[in-house]
Amino acid sequence: MAQRFALIIDPVEASEQRADFSDTFTVVDAAAPALSVGELSTQRGDGVFESIGVIDRHAQEVMPHLERLANSARICDLPAPNQEQWRQAVAVAAAECPAGEAVIKLILSRGVEHGPTPTAWVTAAPASDFSNVRRDGVKVVTLDRGYSLDVAEHAPWLLLGAKTLSYAVNMAALREAHRRGADDAIFLSSDGFVLEAPTASLILRFGDRFVTPAPTGGILHGTTQLSVFEYLSERGLQVGYERIPATDLPRADAAWLVSSVRLAVPITAVDAHTLPVAPALTTDLNHYLLSPRD
Amino acid sequence: MAQRFALIIDPVEASEQRADFSDTFTVVDAAAPALSVGELSTQRGDGVFESIGVIDRHAQEVMPHLERLANSARICDLPAPNQEQWRQAVAVAAAECPAGEAVIKLILSRGVEHGPTPTAWVTAAPASDFSNVRRDGVKVVTLDRGYSLDVAEHAPWLLLGAKTLSYAVNMAALREAHRRGADDAIFLSSDGFVLEAPTASLILRFGDRFVTPAPTGGILHGTTQLSVFEYLSERGLQVGYERIPATDLPRADAAWLVSSVRLAVPITAVDAHTLPVAPALTTDLNHYLLSPRD
Repeated sequence: MAQRFALIIDPVEASEQRADFSDTFTVVDAAAPALSVGELSTQRGDGVFESIGVIDRHAQEVMPHLERLANSARICDLPAPNQEQWRQAVAVAAAECPAGEAVIKLILSRGVEHGPTPTAWVTAAPASDFSNVRRDGVKVVTLDRGYSLDVAEHAPWLLLGAKTLSYAVNMAALREAHRRGADDAIFLSSDGFVLEAPTASLILRFGDRFVTPAPTGGILHGTTQLSVFEYLSERGLQVGYERIPATDLPRADAAWLVSSVRLAVPITAVDAHTLPVAPALTTDLNHYLLSPRD
Repeated sequence: MAQRFALIIDPVEASEQRADFSDTFTVVDAAAPALSVGELSTQRGDGVFESIGVIDRHAQEVMPHLERLANSARICDLPAPNQEQWRQAVAVAAAECPAGEAVIKLILSRGVEHGPTPTAWVTAAPASDFSNVRRDGVKVVTLDRGYSLDVAEHAPWLLLGAKTLSYAVNMAALREAHRRGADDAIFLSSDGFVLEAPTASLILRFGDRFVTPAPTGGILHGTTQLSVFEYLSERGLQVGYERIPATDLPRADAAWLVSSVRLAVPITAVDAHTLPVAPALTTDLNHYLLSPRD
């Protein structure tokens, strides 16, 4: 979806406390030029971001997203975002969203080359209609991410675990999936473990147990996955973080890709293997994810 | 350096042939807003780029850079650039450069989200003064790139070999090098082979033989490295592309990082090992690289 609303945030110190940050926001035309060619986000994908789901002008899981933005900034040596300032910017953007489903994006760029401060902005746009894919699911292929499962621990400069603007590989993986006749991809580590999808987390069901790959630094900790685990736990179901060998994928009793805007999408096939689906549970999950949550 | 000149290129078909593309160029203020927040270069580092050295308004090695831009575009499923159009854009930018050393950057982005065409632009700016570092050299540290040497062959979606805008890891590696008291970094493959620097190629001298890691897809084929090899070959020296184990680094008789704008910089130390330097040859190399070449 094209952005309908955009707000430039004038960054302030993380520690600055005040009731009203509205004088640090500048509304800009989302379709008009707003960024200079010197922006390091455009030159080097040098920055971090978040995508927040919005339901009827209520932004979902705002604090977990802001905490993850701060964590990404820390991994990338960017100045810590002022949480209250960003929370207010999200509130302004949410008020500008259309009714129904929308998406707010937060971007914190390293700024203009040799410039004094980061550049930061927030956009809002109506979401695509994902009702069909939430019902019918996606076929996925597994793709090698090239990294071993534990590489993040000894090589933090690979920025695994940060949601950076350097997403070209994620986009290329989705194109490769489409080339292979699939709808989405699941990344595997070079040593044969399940990681995540290019723009979603993975949840697998084995019997009555729901598991997701442990976010040990090599993958992003999904905000929607956290919400789903909370929901399942409240219903007395067992959830857990595990090292999942790729060979376990075809024997799952059900599997979902979960993300902030598309929400929970059943996986109907992994490579050549058809997976069982759980339509009633998928409907329940999305009903929950579409309810206003903080 | 801040950009002093910027030109937006209105993309045309790769096959379109005409003498004058100047009506497809729009000069913009390099410091003013020129790109919308919907730009996929800013949102996802989704695009490719080149940096070209300029000496007294002569752009160096233009065709090898344009060929590499086209190769990067192909790897990223971007429309093929029109080579003659880009050549003319570089000529316009070169004419706007100050005397002395400058840098022209070419950027081809996937465009605005859901937009019909890529976005493309060219910038020009004075280069930093690299005369000291060309003489005094750099201390480097080796950093794990996380990928095995042959991963590019079976996982093209990792976009290794393309010069993409997703450069956050390259920038993080330079910050890590500075944290360790070094000036630059050399990436190693996870299986212990020498790759490249975050923004430069590596040339090692063993006796009278000059070698660089073979660009088998996992690393970028350096335009400046090609020029240096041409220069050395013309002087009857032996050059070659090899698999270089990381354990060979400390036993090199000399080593350089070479890139389009900083040119040839001697490596004075790798991790804890001091390397011999070859000041006369370094001076000769940079003299050659500073001469106008096509």
